[in-house]
Amino acid sequence: MKKFASQLHFSDKLPKAEKFKSALVIYDKVVARKNPDFKKWLSRFPAAYAVEAGEKLKDFDQFAKHLKKLNSLVSDSSPRSLQVVAVGGGSVGDFAGFFASIYKRGVKLTHFPTTYLSAIDSAHGGKTALNLLGGKNQIGSFYPAEQVWIISSLLKSQSEAQLADARGELAKIAVIDSKVWKLVSKDSGLISFNEFVKMMKPAVEAKMRIVLKDPLEQSGVRQILNLGHTLGHVIESRSKISHGAAVSQGLVFALRWSCRRGNLSYSKLEQIEEILSDRFAIRPSPVPLKRTDVEILLRKDKKRSSKDRVNFVLLKAPGKPLIEQVKISDIVIEAGRQGWIKK
Amino acid sequence: MKKFASQLHFSDKLPKAEKFKSALVIYDKVVARKNPDFKKWLSRFPAAYAVEAGEKLKDFDQFAKHLKKLNSLVSDSSPRSLQVVAVGGGSVGDFAGFFASIYKRGVKLTHFPTTYLSAIDSAHGGKTALNLLGGKNQIGSFYPAEQVWIISSLLKSQSEAQLADARGELAKIAVIDSKVWKLVSKDSGLISFNEFVKMMKPAVEAKMRIVLKDPLEQSGVRQILNLGHTLGHVIESRSKISHGAAVSQGLVFALRWSCRRGNLSYSKLEQIEEILSDRFAIRPSPVPLKRTDVEILLRKDKKRSSKDRVNFVLLKAPGKPLIEQVKISDIVIEAGRQGWIKK
Repeated sequence: MKKFASQLHFSDKLPKAEKFKSALVIYDKVVARKNPDFKKWLSRFPAAYAVEAGEKLKDFDQFAKHLKKLNSLVSDSSPRSLQVVAVGGGSVGDFAGFFASIYKRGVKLTHFPTTYLSAIDSAHGGKTALNLLGGKNQIGSFYPAEQVWIISSLLKSQSEAQLADARGELAKIAVIDSKVWKLVSKDSGLISFNEFVKMMKPAVEAKMRIVLKDPLEQSGVRQILNLGHTLGHVIESRSKISHGAAVSQGLVFALRWSCRRGNLSYSKLEQIEEILSDRFAIRPSPVPLKRTDVEILLRKDKKRSSKDRVNFVLLKAPGKPLIEQVKISDIVIEAGRQGWIKK
Repeated sequence: MKKFASQLHFSDKLPKAEKFKSALVIYDKVVARKNPDFKKWLSRFPAAYAVEAGEKLKDFDQFAKHLKKLNSLVSDSSPRSLQVVAVGGGSVGDFAGFFASIYKRGVKLTHFPTTYLSAIDSAHGGKTALNLLGGKNQIGSFYPAEQVWIISSLLKSQSEAQLADARGELAKIAVIDSKVWKLVSKDSGLISFNEFVKMMKPAVEAKMRIVLKDPLEQSGVRQILNLGHTLGHVIESRSKISHGAAVSQGLVFALRWSCRRGNLSYSKLEQIEEILSDRFAIRPSPVPLKRTDVEILLRKDKKRSSKDRVNFVLLKAPGKPLIEQVKISDIVIEAGRQGWIKK
């Protein structure tokens, strides 16, 4: 069987291009434009394919066109040695990972994430995805990269807003993993770039501990990583705020609900919210949504377990998540209480 | 990890449709036209999709169109319970299996093979495939079915030519597996429909013994199943003869070359050829091909191991295959000796 855990490398600079034999580099063209070192590195590879990052890249309708171009770049190489090297954020990794998973029934894959969010989350755990008719991630595979290289010089050109976005996923992992929670809570003040880079390794390892218990999402354990995402995805698709910010709000929602349901004590909730505010700048800031929108979107949730229930991640204490099948109507009621539904 | 061995069921009649909950049936429309029992059975499923079997179904350019229609049939069901039930021969199984492998990152899959060839070979072992720009099986995945149902009443409407075709794959499995070889060689006369049906179970089990040693074709052991296919594929694509017949000729080629190379004794070769002739109606009948065609096609072989070599399966004795990296030019010389190259 394919090994699920990727080899993880952390480095300041790009490794030697010669390490990657018979490679096809699929890269975000903006990264090449902004980063002269990367551009020089790229020129050492025999085959490279520039893409425009974003949701359009993930449109299945465009995929056959890309596939033909990619195929023409590598049709001479033997499938046993070919490897795809993906350089970019989440959309580039999803696209290149999916391509690697189905080309000649699967070729080697290496990720170089270039956004904070992909470096800490999407490059790990083997999920690849494309969109179908606007339905996000409806098509995809479980196809872990053999190697993931996290190169801090590739990340540095990111904006402060993008760092804020990635802090949302870091906050989520911190809340469900006691080791990361300890690291986060032993200092104070907003997490800086350098701190973030240092925390990436323990955060990725924490994610992988959960992934490896349920790599193909069969037992359900992997759904723990969904903490904050149930309402988070609704917020993301119905307001203008980013994925990380939406997940942060979804996280606060789940924590407060955990407390109201009696899973999490009030004193623990207070302590967690203080750290989220101080270290991550995460504070509850509900923007009321239409009740029917919330209901419809919750019904489309991939974690729906039956006609009117979804698997929802709650918290008992830092490092102690639990999954419960909850009624969609109960989520809507609680969303109303917390100010997420228009009166 | 996904289990690689499918649950195997052999039966005369179709099982109850109620056994297959939340099923989407993808079926060969000709089977529905020819088999009233199947048509009645089909009407018990909430979602069904008729396809035209053949290579056109496997064209990646057509796939996005199919995907949208399939998606609209099942968008209401929860991905955790959805299962694809494929009813058809090799092309339908390849198409439906690939769809199941990438829809919502993989849903359950059940095969009902309706051709002898798919019942004995392609429905087992988890290979799915589509074609890209005329390149056969360039896109695909390893995605074993959870269940394979071999229903003899579904197979009965097949022609004698199709049975002859499937005998080629049975002969190949017999030669590489001593258990099947014993079964085949203990009787005499051309293998009948009833005999073929009886031999399917041991033949499939023999294939799966090899597949399970190397499910993702990483160590190379699985390439044993390629016996007869290296020249077989060349013959298939350059003459009008069927897959099974081409593989049969490729098998004879590999056996004779094994003997000339000293891997297989002359007396064993004689004994094997007698059984192949008597039980399978397989006799050498070379149709000379153009030398350049043979060279070009061998260079495109997926089992190519380096610039000018391919992994080639030879035989030491029934049940004792061996894989060697041989020069493409040596295959061409031997093909000339055995009458496969135009003078």
